[in-house]
Amino acid sequence: MRLTVYTDYSLRVLMFLALKGDGLATIAEIAKAYGISKNHLMKVTHQLGLAGYVEKVRGKGGGMRLSRMAEVIVLGEVVRRTEPDMALVPCFALGDTSCAILSSCALRVTLFRARDAFLSALDGTTLADLVRPRAPLQSLLSLRPGGRAPPRIARPVRRA
Amino acid sequence: MRLTVYTDYSLRVLMFLALKGDGLATIAEIAKAYGISKNHLMKVTHQLGLAGYVEKVRGKGGGMRLSRMAEVIVLGEVVRRTEPDMALVPCFALGDTSCAILSSCALRVTLFRARDAFLSALDGTTLADLVRPRAPLQSLLSLRPGGRAPPRIARPVRRA
Repeated sequence: MRLTVYTDYSLRVLMFLALKGDGLATIAEIAKAYGISKNHLMKVTHQLGLAGYVEKVRGKGGGMRLSRMAEVIVLGEVVRRTEPDMALVPCFALGDTSCAILSSCALRVTLFRARDAFLSALDGTTLADLVRPRAPLQSLLSLRPGGRAPPRIARPVRRA
Repeated sequence: MRLTVYTDYSLRVLMFLALKGDGLATIAEIAKAYGISKNHLMKVTHQLGLAGYVEKVRGKGGGMRLSRMAEVIVLGEVVRRTEPDMALVPCFALGDTSCAILSSCALRVTLFRARDAFLSALDGTTLADLVRPRAPLQSLLSLRPGGRAPPRIARPVRRA
């Protein structure tokens, strides 16, 4: 049982933006922080924009940020949007008639119930919950609390 | 979110065998009933044998049957065995270090909890539950209740 790479990346982008706070983030910055491809992220962030989670600011110094508070972004809702159909088995898809026992199948009903239990568990968590505590996550992603640049420490110059 | 084809087929084979009752079933018969490939089913039934769900009787007139009562075959256990690793995201796999925030990630913990909710929902269902009521499922799979052959009705012979 796997979530798509697309869902995985979407959730990680949202976490990055929640940790970035008010600052704008670029695709290059997110790609570097997680060590993943910029090309993949372009599609992911475009879709997150269409879904209303992310807004983009164009131009020099531009980038993206969350368009809603992290407290109202519910994990279950994001996964329902990013997973193409949540079809655990082919017969979940509308109009599928490939299985002989479809019309009387208790397995299908049971799997539907289990999928709902999965999503319900995610409905209890918001994006804000995922980024607590902030400091260690910001550190791992090379983000500084409050978006401030780290203090610059001059290296002692070695003389030859 | 998808289960593997292998899990899907495994569950359907077990349902077929539970509906077949004491009779032996062949791969050809199961493949025909569901309209799926015999080659796929050979691997599936071999693994179900290794997992102790199915036993084979060799020789002419041989075939396979459940090696346990359907009432003690728990759906959640079967899925845990047939799904390769239940790794919703790559970082579920042991030893994976591909994500920068792994050490402090609440998303991973939340997804683990959701996966457990999914499996717990399946733990409440046995194979016996999946094949009730038997008659319509047996009919859809061209199995006759009790394993008896259907009454043969002589066709009127047309004379040229």
